[in-house]
Parts: sequence; structure tokens; C-alpha cells
Amino acid sequence: MIRTTTPATRPPRPSATVPGADGRRAVPEAFVRARAAVEPELRRLVGALAPEVRRVVAYHLGFADADGRAITDGGGKAARPALAVLSAEAAGAVRPEEVALPGAVAVELIHNFSLLHDDVMDRDLERRHRPTAWSVFGVGPAIIAGDALQTLAHQVLLAGDERFGRRAGARLAAATARMIAGQGQDLAFESRPEVSYAECLEMSENKTGALLGFATSAGAILAGGDQRLIDGLEAFGVHLGVAYQAVDDLLGLWGSPEVTGKPAGNDLRRGKKTLPTTAALGSGTPAGHRLARLLAAGEVRDEDVAQGLRLIEDAGGRDRAAREADARVAMAVDALDRGRVDGPARRGLLEVATFVVGRDF
Amino acid sequence: MIRTTTPATRPPRPSATVPGADGRRAVPEAFVRARAAVEPELRRLVGALAPEVRRVVAYHLGFADADGRAITDGGGKAARPALAVLSAEAAGAVRPEEVALPGAVAVELIHNFSLLHDDVMDRDLERRHRPTAWSVFGVGPAIIAGDALQTLAHQVLLAGDERFGRRAGARLAAATARMIAGQGQDLAFESRPEVSYAECLEMSENKTGALLGFATSAGAILAGGDQRLIDGLEAFGVHLGVAYQAVDDLLGLWGSPEVTGKPAGNDLRRGKKTLPTTAALGSGTPAGHRLARLLAAGEVRDEDVAQGLRLIEDAGGRDRAAREADARVAMAVDALDRGRVDGPARRGLLEVATFVVGRDF
Repeated sequence: MIRTTTPATRPPRPSATVPGADGRRAVPEAFVRARAAVEPELRRLVGALAPEVRRVVAYHLGFADADGRAITDGGGKAARPALAVLSAEAAGAVRPEEVALPGAVAVELIHNFSLLHDDVMDRDLERRHRPTAWSVFGVGPAIIAGDALQTLAHQVLLAGDERFGRRAGARLAAATARMIAGQGQDLAFESRPEVSYAECLEMSENKTGALLGFATSAGAILAGGDQRLIDGLEAFGVHLGVAYQAVDDLLGLWGSPEVTGKPAGNDLRRGKKTLPTTAALGSGTPAGHRLARLLAAGEVRDEDVAQGLRLIEDAGGRDRAAREADARVAMAVDALDRGRVDGPARRGLLEVATFVVGRDF
Repeated sequence: MIRTTTPATRPPRPSATVPGADGRRAVPEAFVRARAAVEPELRRLVGALAPEVRRVVAYHLGFADADGRAITDGGGKAARPALAVLSAEAAGAVRPEEVALPGAVAVELIHNFSLLHDDVMDRDLERRHRPTAWSVFGVGPAIIAGDALQTLAHQVLLAGDERFGRRAGARLAAATARMIAGQGQDLAFESRPEVSYAECLEMSENKTGALLGFATSAGAILAGGDQRLIDGLEAFGVHLGVAYQAVDDLLGLWGSPEVTGKPAGNDLRRGKKTLPTTAALGSGTPAGHRLARLLAAGEVRDEDVAQGLRLIEDAGGRDRAAREADARVAMAVDALDRGRVDGPARRGLLEVATFVVGRDF
């Protein structure tokens, strides 16, 4: 059984950082391998885009600065490509990086399409410690850049192997549809007075889980793995995504500013509906009722943030989200058992799971 | 040879409507057949979207009002689906509506995805005589609705027949990539002081031509038509798209407000780079130089619009765009010859061509 370091395994502490999110642990080896395989291909694909689209995409991916000059230290952590490569390994691919490449690239493209559009919709000014693409180039170019990345993801998968590419393409489109539905739910929740924990959970499963489910099964699909394996790997990714989201929600409330790059209690200040908050509001406890009155005003004032966090905790919201993360990691491991995933691929997937649930990615 | 009714065939008249755009001609029979096949499928697909996405999409497509109540008189003219159905007919499909259906639906979805995002980027308030989706539901929901339609288009094609669905999906993705590149060029032109006629033509070929090229070949691909036929049909669609764009540009300058729904000279007032304008600016004539000075200020004042239109005309911009439309229609017809398209499918395609070049669709 995987050892998780989510908050439920420690005594609750107000305003503490979420354990495991200290930024000091080493990156799993699978990330390094996957990034080495994916990055040259991503750079090649981006280089072939029309110049007007390319400059925005290259900036967003950390390949170039705002003036188009090449920079080398950019790029994300390649968690999704790593899952895709491990998934090909689970299906017995001799050269997993090669077999999984179209899936690994496609999932990274879809992920970045969603980030580009999310930043426009949320009017976020910063991403990966740099100004967001829309704030540098404008809303229109950022929308177009996101659109182009979605298209490119489909092109990449359909350019691959005849039979498996189509199957992978169909599953990518289905996962993307769920991700977009989740974004729609997330956005709609902002203007709804009441959102239940179950609705918030479903939104997380769509918005974050579906694409991780694709990542974790894409390599096996492309390697021609059997259906039981593919389904098990996909379920692993979906549960892992929800676990990640639960931890992310906890960080958005109790994460220290040094780790999250945002002021403590940031999500509460913005009145965001998250797993801890909706759990507290639906708890039927006195603290839950007091929280509802505090949030009824919309945004929470700075001087009320500490009280709000205490109310969520007293109403059991923090604990429930932490238990959700633990339960989802356990469900992810069960899914690997059902898919009969073992050997180095299993160890690699569990290492990634421990890593991504423990910290931001 | 097809008889065109583009402006070059008539003596130039200042501020006249473009002939054929009087809204009185009958809709080609292929439109009616295609719409009857496509609309129920579109309604079914939209009905299966997540509620938060569905309400925006249903409104945009004219299936529902802003409150989600069903309305029946909505929907576009189905020019693209008609081209897809005729393309299956050209490949000898016995039931062309059925064979072409995934392609006809996918192209309509991609087209509407681009409209949703274009309206956000241009901040346009009206589309098809109704408030635009973003102006009713907000920017975020409109972006998400567009994203969802792009994804759905890929799902539709990959859910179809094993071999041809993949081929059609790959060509749809390639056409969509060109369309998005064209949108990027169009947007970038706004903030560039000089844009050549050749650049404007390339932009039109990407933005409008590529997707019409897919529409006109999709049915033949899905029907398993040979490569010569597919290529000929695709070229027909691309040229038709440029011809349509040239006429649209002429309407944006000289179209009467009753036809375009916009004030006369609207594109000039906004300083938009179009085929007539860039042709005039690049003409090297005295009128072209005077036009450049008039446009140097950015937006054109109401009292200068009539003068600006006259300068474009005196510099030969109106005539060049009109000749481009004629030439492109001729090239489209040549492409049908090369693809050996004949019989009722050829007649249907020519009827659609005459219709779409003559009026807005």
C-alpha cells in the first residue's frame, strides 16, 4: 500500500502548510525520462505553428520570452507525459517513451490549452511565476493559442499508428469533453449560492480526473494493451486526479504563501467553492451555519479569513477533504490491482502518485 | 461555366449593394436536405452536453432562448453540411445524407466553435440578429462553449466508421488548424500598420477556405472516394471560401445596411484590413497614397467614410477584390473538372457556389 502524506494522517493545525508540499522532495525519475522525450517533440510542433500563434504558445510553454527570444529553463514538470510513458511500460512496450509519445504530447497540449483558457476566464495574472499569456499578448491571442493547442493534440494522435491512434484519439476527445464540462461546472458554481460536496466532487473528477485518466491509459492504448489493463490504468488516473484536486483545495486554504505563491486563505477570500468548503457548508453543524452566513456576503474580508478557516475546520471540512484524498489514493491503487499492473511500471506510477498528491504540479 | 454575379460583372457604383445579395433568391435544395439530416443529430448531441455548457450552445445554435426555452426558427443555413452531403453524392454514395452525416455535423460544430470565439475576440454584440452568446452568458461560458464544440466535432468523426472516420478526423484537424492560424493572422493584422494583399489573401484562404475545403471533401472521404476526387473537391471548397470572403469584404464596405445589418462602410470605419483595402493600399496609385494617410489615424471618422470608399475604388481595390471572387469561382470549377465530378453532385455544388458567393451565409 502506498504511504500518503495528506493532512488526515497528521493532527489538524490551523494555517499549517500541507505536509509533503515543502518543495524539497526529488522529482520522480519518470518525470525526467518523459520530459526528455516530450520536450523536443513539443518544440518541433510549436515551431511549425503560424508565427502569430507560435509566439503566444512558445511563451506560455516557457520556450520563449515575451519578445520571442528562446529561453531554456521553461516547461512544466511533465507529470502527465510521465504517466503516459509508464502506461506504455505497463503494457509491456519495449520502448515506452517512443510508443507513448503521441499520447504524452497530446495530453500535455490539452492540459496547456485548458490553462491558457482558464487564465483568461479567471483573469489570473500569474502562472508558473510568470505573467499569464493573455496579460502579455491580450485575450484574443490567448484564446486562439488555446484553440490551436487543442487542435494540435488531435492532429498528433491521428497522425500516429492507424488503429491505436484512432482509439487513443477517441478517448482523448472523450476526456477533453469531460474536462471542459468540469470547467463549465467550476465557472457556474461561482455564481450559484449553494453547491453540494457531491457536485464539487463530480466537478473535480471531470475537470482534473478525466485528463489524468487519459494520460495514464494513453500509453497502454498506443501499445495495444488489453481492455482490462487500459480500464484499470484509466481509473487509476481519474482517482489520482481527484486526490490531487483535494490536496490542491487544502493548499488553497491552508497552504503557506511560500509554497502556493498566493496569500494564505486565498480561495476563501475569493469565495471559491472547494471540497473543504462545500463539505463544511453541508455538514449541518453550527460551524457550518456560521460559515454560510460569513460567505453569504460573497467575498470574505481579510480580517475574517482566519475565522472562516477555523469554521471550515470546526465543521469537519478540512478533515473530509483530507480523507477524500486518502480514499482516492487507495482507490487508485485498487484500480492498478484490477488492471493487473505490476513490476517497474507499478512502482513508477505509485511514485508519481505519491509525488503529485504531496505537492503542486 | 457557372454564371457569377459578383461586382466585376456590373459597372461599379459607389455605395451600391453587391448584386445577388438582395436576400430574395431561393435557398438551394441541397441546403434543405442537409439541414433536415443534420439538425436532429445536432440537437441530440447538444442535448447530451453538461447543462452548464448546453445552455450556451443551445442558445448560440438557435435551439433555445437565453432562458433555455426551446425555439424552433433557429439555426444557420447549413451551407457547410450541404457541401458535405453533395461531396458524398459525388463519390457515388447511395445514401449521401447518411454517409456524410458525421462530416456534415463536425464541420457545422467547428464553424460554430469559431463563431463563438470570434464574437468574444471581436466583442461583437450581435450574430444572426440576436445578442451574441458572450454578451448574454459572459466571456467564460462562451469560451467554454466554443471549446466544447471543437471537442465534440472530433468525437463525432472518431465515433464513426473505423478507417474513413480516422482519415476524415485527421483532415478536419488539419483544416481546423489552418482556420485557427487564419484567425490569428486576422487578429494580428489589426495592430499591424501594413498588410499586403497577398497576406490578406492567405489569411482568407486559411480562415474561410480551409474549413470549406474540408466540408466539400468530407462526404467523399467518408464514402471511401478516391484521392483524385477528394483533392478536387477540397480545392473546390478552398477556392469557394476565398470567393465568399472577397464578396464578404465587398459587402463590409459597399453592402447596404438592410442586407448586412451593419452601417455602410462599417469595415472602413473600424480600419479593418480586407482584400479591397489592402489592394488599394498596395496599388501605388495617388488614391492609394491618400487612402494610406486617411487610415494612418486608425479609425475612420463618419464624415470621412464616403471619401475613403471612393479612394479604395479609385485605387482599383474594389475591382481587384471583385476579380478575385470571379477568378476563384473559375478555379473552383476547374477543381471539379480535375476531380472528375459530374452529374447531379456537380450541379448541386455549382448551385451552392453561386448562392454563397452571391450572398451572406
